[in-house]
Amino acid sequence: MAKSNNKDNFQIQFGKRIRALRKDKNLSLRKLSQRCNLDYSDIAKYEKGEVNIQLSTIYELSVGLQVAPKELFDFDFVFNDN
Amino acid sequence: MAKSNNKDNFQIQFGKRIRALRKDKNLSLRKLSQRCNLDYSDIAKYEKGEVNIQLSTIYELSVGLQVAPKELFDFDFVFNDN
Repeated sequence: MAKSNNKDNFQIQFGKRIRALRKDKNLSLRKLSQRCNLDYSDIAKYEKGEVNIQLSTIYELSVGLQVAPKELFDFDFVFNDN
Repeated sequence: MAKSNNKDNFQIQFGKRIRALRKDKNLSLRKLSQRCNLDYSDIAKYEKGEVNIQLSTIYELSVGLQVAPKELFDFDFVFNDN
């Protein structure tokens, strides 16, 4: 089903973006988790696109990475739903 | 509890941003719901900041509003968690 693939792909792309931002800042998973209310093993799952996270987690990732929320979504993504 | 207030506030600010984008495009709630896989009554709740939505809903809102996901988060927000 193209639609769900694209949505899954969005989740994966988002995860890659989080990982890239974390690496840019030379943060380990543990270090990032200490800067926000998230468990490092959960962050690892987010980075692999395994979790359909909520706004509250997006908020925590922004706090931990010290970037504006829109930075977390600053990746190229093609919608092929219509 | 300052932290949860700030997180709730983030949800409210996000909702206002969705509403502003929808109004910019002269879309009713029903019209927006017809352009993506979301129910118009749910979109109304998102706009009021009543729901801690997930990435999949963010994806649908981007499709419906025909904007890049980062546009949905293009609002000023002050983190006062540290």
